[in-house]
Amino acid sequence: SKSESKQSPPPVVHYHMNKLTTSSDPVGNRETVLILTPLARFYQEYWDNLLKLTYPHELISLGFIVPKGREGNAATAALQAQVSKTQSGPEKKRFASVTILRQDTESPLENQSESERHKLENQKVRRAAMSKARNSLLFTTMGPTTSWVLWLDSDIIETPPTLIQDLASHDKPIIVPNCFQRYYDEETKKMDVRPYDFNSWIDSQAAQQLASQMGNDDILLEGYHDMPTYRSLMAYMVDKGSDNPHAEVQLDGVGGTALLVKAEVHRDGAMFPPFAFYHLIETEGFAKMASRLGWKSWGLPNYFVYHYNE
Amino acid sequence: SKSESKQSPPPVVHYHMNKLTTSSDPVGNRETVLILTPLARFYQEYWDNLLKLTYPHELISLGFIVPKGREGNAATAALQAQVSKTQSGPEKKRFASVTILRQDTESPLENQSESERHKLENQKVRRAAMSKARNSLLFTTMGPTTSWVLWLDSDIIETPPTLIQDLASHDKPIIVPNCFQRYYDEETKKMDVRPYDFNSWIDSQAAQQLASQMGNDDILLEGYHDMPTYRSLMAYMVDKGSDNPHAEVQLDGVGGTALLVKAEVHRDGAMFPPFAFYHLIETEGFAKMASRLGWKSWGLPNYFVYHYNE
Ligand SMILES: Nc1nc2c(ncn2[C@@H]2O[C@H](COP(=O)(O)OP(=O)(O)O)[C@@H](O)[C@H]2O)c(=O)[nH]1
Ligand SMILES: Nc1nc2c(ncn2[C@@H]2O[C@H](COP(=O)(O)OP(=O)(O)O)[C@@H](O)[C@H]2O)c(=O)[nH]1
Ligand SMILES: [Mn+2]
Ligand SMILES: [Mn+2]
Repeated sequence: SKSESKQSPPPVVHYHMNKLTTSSDPVGNRETVLILTPLARFYQEYWDNLLKLTYPHELISLGFIVPKGREGNAATAALQAQVSKTQSGPEKKRFASVTILRQDTESPLENQSESERHKLENQKVRRAAMSKARNSLLFTTMGPTTSWVLWLDSDIIETPPTLIQDLASHDKPIIVPNCFQRYYDEETKKMDVRPYDFNSWIDSQAAQQLASQMGNDDILLEGYHDMPTYRSLMAYMVDKGSDNPHAEVQLDGVGGTALLVKAEVHRDGAMFPPFAFYHLIETEGFAKMASRLGWKSWGLPNYFVYHYNE
Repeated sequence: SKSESKQSPPPVVHYHMNKLTTSSDPVGNRETVLILTPLARFYQEYWDNLLKLTYPHELISLGFIVPKGREGNAATAALQAQVSKTQSGPEKKRFASVTILRQDTESPLENQSESERHKLENQKVRRAAMSKARNSLLFTTMGPTTSWVLWLDSDIIETPPTLIQDLASHDKPIIVPNCFQRYYDEETKKMDVRPYDFNSWIDSQAAQQLASQMGNDDILLEGYHDMPTYRSLMAYMVDKGSDNPHAEVQLDGVGGTALLVKAEVHRDGAMFPPFAFYHLIETEGFAKMASRLGWKSWGLPNYFVYHYNE
């Protein structure tokens, strides 16, 4: 770190990339993890869940990017309060560093209700903006000692505490758990779970066919009836008879609500295309770009994280 | 930087991207510049030229990436010696920080002579490797306070000392000077200059036509007789009757021997595609990607920098 003395020369830092490992035993090898969260709204449950992660916090750096505007201001204030509390609390809970970026643009959709966000015509604009936010955060916070990047949305409110170790143990370039949502079933009068994220999938001929008829800038989107892709969605691959959360499946598209990436994948140049890339955008486009760079994506259909329910 | 005291909480850093300017008066606005150099060979003339840049050195950070292997070791040693000398020399000459990354891969071509490098069949492999090196360097060194990125090859041995101010004064997202080479003309028995970099161009219908007949992974390359692109090359746009080094021309492809980029262009996601992107790769693919993100490229045909002559 930079010396304060006026006499001493500014720092020269020398990094050997071959000494930077990304292994199935990241704790044993003291590998650093950068947790990146685009954050339009702050949820206390997200922070509480983050604090419960058992990966050594001194190996974790946090990066947030928050949009401009009233909602962004409120989110920043709430985040800042929790960060201050944690970073001045018990040593074991403190993170190595925290970076908060404020965008110079507002969130493209004023009304960020779940139904509004998911409208087809809003998706391209929204996901292009999300891509730029993710890229800004990534390009700005990744350092020479980062081994892993964990993308974690601000509305992921429940994960196993061993999330990082569990995902890393698979030793995959890109790995994504299954993102579900808890809800109250009015019929059974019981809490139940349902799929939330449909961006993790195996490609289909039908989708390829749809894509081949599209204009250059058009994008395929998952989960819309007007656009039947017949892709195999990880959301529907849950094996209810299995007690093995570590079953793996290779994917062509990934969602970003929770997503572990070896830093070298990003370093090679894999980012979140804010434009149509093979008719894909954002996290799905990222998986495609990574595959063009020789990195495969994997999913864990029986390993769950949970999205907030508005 | 991280506090050494065990008691004090780890740092929380808060950045407002809207306060980070990239203006035509970067010195007046104290804008930071990150100079990035992929470096396979060290040239003393490169370093001497760098030291002569009049942009305030305390606003400049340097980043290098050096390939693995014997040649890389030699280059690193030579670089390290000069860095140490400069950073312990006169305060005014010292740079804000220096990062040296060692790749975990070797340079793809053992024999890096100029003629070997420029063979058509070697270009795709070479430029894919160069792209990955550039991306690694960029993703790893760009920070939240970086306003500008100056790409500068290690064999650029002569530029105006006001290079950064001159290029920035145009206030363009991406701007490239004309890269020439000094040589001894055997006929006239005098030193003369000739074009070196042919990657800065305006696109042509012929090139578009060639591209449309290519396979998905094929790339167009400039300066090869088998592939007549009829693009308008900036190398041939020099106006010998003009004394205006600031004449501007809009470009579709750019070279990277010297290239000034607003950091926000990279932050949005513009990187150096190591794969065919619209049949373009590396710096030319970068210009295309930036244009898809809404950022235009410009060239200065009458403003020169000079490449080493082997
Ligand atoms: N920085 C930033 N974050 C955003 C923006 N819009 C949404 N987010 C965050 O990005 C993540 C995904 O957005 P969200 O609205 O939850 O998407 P959905 O659940 O897929 O519909 C969440 O962490 C949001 O808080 C934005 O414009 N800028
Ligand atoms: N890190 C890294 N730098 C390289 C590699 N190959 C070339 N370079 C550097 O990248 C720049 C461009 O390469 P060069 O061989 O000069 O290309 P040319 O002048 O366009 O033929 C120069 O600064 C080289 O020192 C490589 O494999 N790794
Ligand atoms: Mn969400
Ligand atoms: Mn060169």
